[in-house]
Amino acid sequence: MQSLNSKYFNIILFTDLMSAKWKGFSSTIRAEEARNILLEHINNIIETERISVFDAFNRKLSCEIVSDKSLPGFKRSAMDGYAVKSRNTFGASDTSPIQLRISGKTEIGDTEKLELTDGAAIRISTGAPLPDNADAVIKIEECEEINEFTLEIYSSVASGKNVANEDEDVKINEIIFSKNHLILPWDLALLVSLGIQEVDVYRKPKVAILSTGSELVAINEVLKLGQVVDSNRPAIEVWCRYLGAEIAFSETCVDEVDEITDRLNKFAGNCDLIITTGGTSVGTRDYMAEIISKNGKHWVNGISIRPGKPVIVGQVFGTLIIALPGYPLAAFINFDIFVVLALQYWTGMSSYWEHETDVKLNQSIASNSGTRDMVRLVDAEDGADLVRITGAGILSSLTRADYLLEIPEDLEGYNKGSEVKVRRLRK
Amino acid sequence: MQSLNSKYFNIILFTDLMSAKWKGFSSTIRAEEARNILLEHINNIIETERISVFDAFNRKLSCEIVSDKSLPGFKRSAMDGYAVKSRNTFGASDTSPIQLRISGKTEIGDTEKLELTDGAAIRISTGAPLPDNADAVIKIEECEEINEFTLEIYSSVASGKNVANEDEDVKINEIIFSKNHLILPWDLALLVSLGIQEVDVYRKPKVAILSTGSELVAINEVLKLGQVVDSNRPAIEVWCRYLGAEIAFSETCVDEVDEITDRLNKFAGNCDLIITTGGTSVGTRDYMAEIISKNGKHWVNGISIRPGKPVIVGQVFGTLIIALPGYPLAAFINFDIFVVLALQYWTGMSSYWEHETDVKLNQSIASNSGTRDMVRLVDAEDGADLVRITGAGILSSLTRADYLLEIPEDLEGYNKGSEVKVRRLRK
Repeated sequence: MQSLNSKYFNIILFTDLMSAKWKGFSSTIRAEEARNILLEHINNIIETERISVFDAFNRKLSCEIVSDKSLPGFKRSAMDGYAVKSRNTFGASDTSPIQLRISGKTEIGDTEKLELTDGAAIRISTGAPLPDNADAVIKIEECEEINEFTLEIYSSVASGKNVANEDEDVKINEIIFSKNHLILPWDLALLVSLGIQEVDVYRKPKVAILSTGSELVAINEVLKLGQVVDSNRPAIEVWCRYLGAEIAFSETCVDEVDEITDRLNKFAGNCDLIITTGGTSVGTRDYMAEIISKNGKHWVNGISIRPGKPVIVGQVFGTLIIALPGYPLAAFINFDIFVVLALQYWTGMSSYWEHETDVKLNQSIASNSGTRDMVRLVDAEDGADLVRITGAGILSSLTRADYLLEIPEDLEGYNKGSEVKVRRLRK
Repeated sequence: MQSLNSKYFNIILFTDLMSAKWKGFSSTIRAEEARNILLEHINNIIETERISVFDAFNRKLSCEIVSDKSLPGFKRSAMDGYAVKSRNTFGASDTSPIQLRISGKTEIGDTEKLELTDGAAIRISTGAPLPDNADAVIKIEECEEINEFTLEIYSSVASGKNVANEDEDVKINEIIFSKNHLILPWDLALLVSLGIQEVDVYRKPKVAILSTGSELVAINEVLKLGQVVDSNRPAIEVWCRYLGAEIAFSETCVDEVDEITDRLNKFAGNCDLIITTGGTSVGTRDYMAEIISKNGKHWVNGISIRPGKPVIVGQVFGTLIIALPGYPLAAFINFDIFVVLALQYWTGMSSYWEHETDVKLNQSIASNSGTRDMVRLVDAEDGADLVRITGAGILSSLTRADYLLEIPEDLEGYNKGSEVKVRRLRK
């Protein structure tokens, strides 16, 4: 056992492990409580960076944005019609139309400001700037050009009618986005409309990923007996990036205390969050709890959930760490519970598994009281079926599944035919 | 009017426009019907590409994937304990324990296969390969090492107990993903686990974007009267990319028939979808319907929705085109209705505005029968308020909003206090 020589490792005899196993995770707590503990310990990212507005999509503003101009920025027509002086239209009706002189036209894109004289009308298209002296637009349906020079109008218009003010959309000095606003596509459009070329945003959270496991090999290696390809890590990478994080480190490491400790020490201080997989249970090579205790502390060590019990949340060498179990299903369930929470705290972005829907259960499902069961379901005729195979190591039970059903700690299960709220694993 | 000289343009006199305005969009149809028409005309992307599995996240498989190996690939222990021959344990109990000789140990990561002899037990950790001749694992809790060489066991185990088969997760020749499966993080993990280094996927849909409008200028230009920054285009770009598309072209163009026609001609055949903004209404410079009719056809010209009525769906120079209105709110609403539909048809990815939730209305909202109203709401104490300012040109009514309420064509509105289903604009 490599660990016996380690200065970092409190030697655990096999008999000690037995008692560890018997008492299980003495500090096991509910998932919700564990999430709250994580939230209590997480720190805001305070570093900011100034970026081009065109790169600001899905970034979080580090200060509020105040408009220094109005939008649209000029008084414009809200209709296709004729710009008029409203007082020239008073009394017009179908039976007693008023004639105005057509003195010009203005279109969207015309940059020369026209001037309206008394008794005249200027053809105007929707969105075109209102001529000087005009105070209303009469809609095309309410008048007729009886010849090239003469407009006959059939109704009067009040001052301001069919005119959009220059600050109809945004006023000068208006707070258009508050600090921490996440820039979505239409937000980007508003920033660009205001001519804002750069914005200050929080830098992306930096994540370090470490797969631990002496059995792990790279995808291009020939597997020896007992070896498996390191597959959690690439999945965690893409999921983290999807949530707006930057991958600062991504490595694989054998189950050796010194080696793991060295890697964590290298990562710490150079990232906001360390994510590890493996070594979180109570077997002979499960070193994560020890390493974290020795070089930091853990606030959560095991949660009352199935699958996914052996997860550790704490800090190591001063940096936040979420140590996921090595078994893939358990790893991804805890990723969803803890890593998504942390990354969304920083980035505010969407993740998978957020859509809820209702399904009818085609089978009864039992659950241990005191444990939150994470049950995979698959779409079936007239309801949802259980995914046949279970176990924290069975990745295909997740890739086959359409829904995740959470059976809370206080429930002992659901009867066949129950309508339950589930989360969609896929769109 | 530039268009008068255009060989592509059927001259429309201003009086013709008036009748066009009066009859409105004669072919106006409901949004749902228009979406179905788009779906009838959209073609599958058939070109595929072979990419690294590590780039396969959010890509759609172009053929099914069959495993050529089993997972985990070897028989392994499901528990920490001792590998035994089950028949050596028969009859063991607390009162009459059986002693076995401890002949070795095996851990995760050990690549040498051990062999179990009769009457012996081998220490084994969860996930470690089962020794030859062993057929069960006795849990650590059900036995005790009375000395270094001797294990005393207190219960019997049946053959296969606490052993995971080599194909427990995936069997050889199993179809693990069908054609058209979208690769999500856990799917990526399964592919990597199986040692699959490359996958065949459909290429990304290619989109061409054209903002039309003589009033449009770049963000770094000094605005003259009536000019506005081209802000729809960058927003459409990021939203398209978010949906898995590649931007083949992204350009701005004045309201001139020849110019627009040339651009569309350049794009067509070099992309899967052309998205334009502007020129879709019935004003003097609204050329899109004419250009599309002249060089292709439109299946949809106007839908009964507010805001967002002037939208055109068709094909031009043989390529699918979705011509969005120029006003930003109307553009984004139609983007959601049509562009998201098309891109999701190809990519299967998630978009914004997909989450539904229920809110209570703090105000009554009226709606014209026959029109689908897209109402922006904002989170408020004890319910949702209407966003004060309306109009297709008011982008800030979208950036301020938290929810989108759709009032169907057959309803005349909702009373204050109604509980309504809304779509979340933000997470």
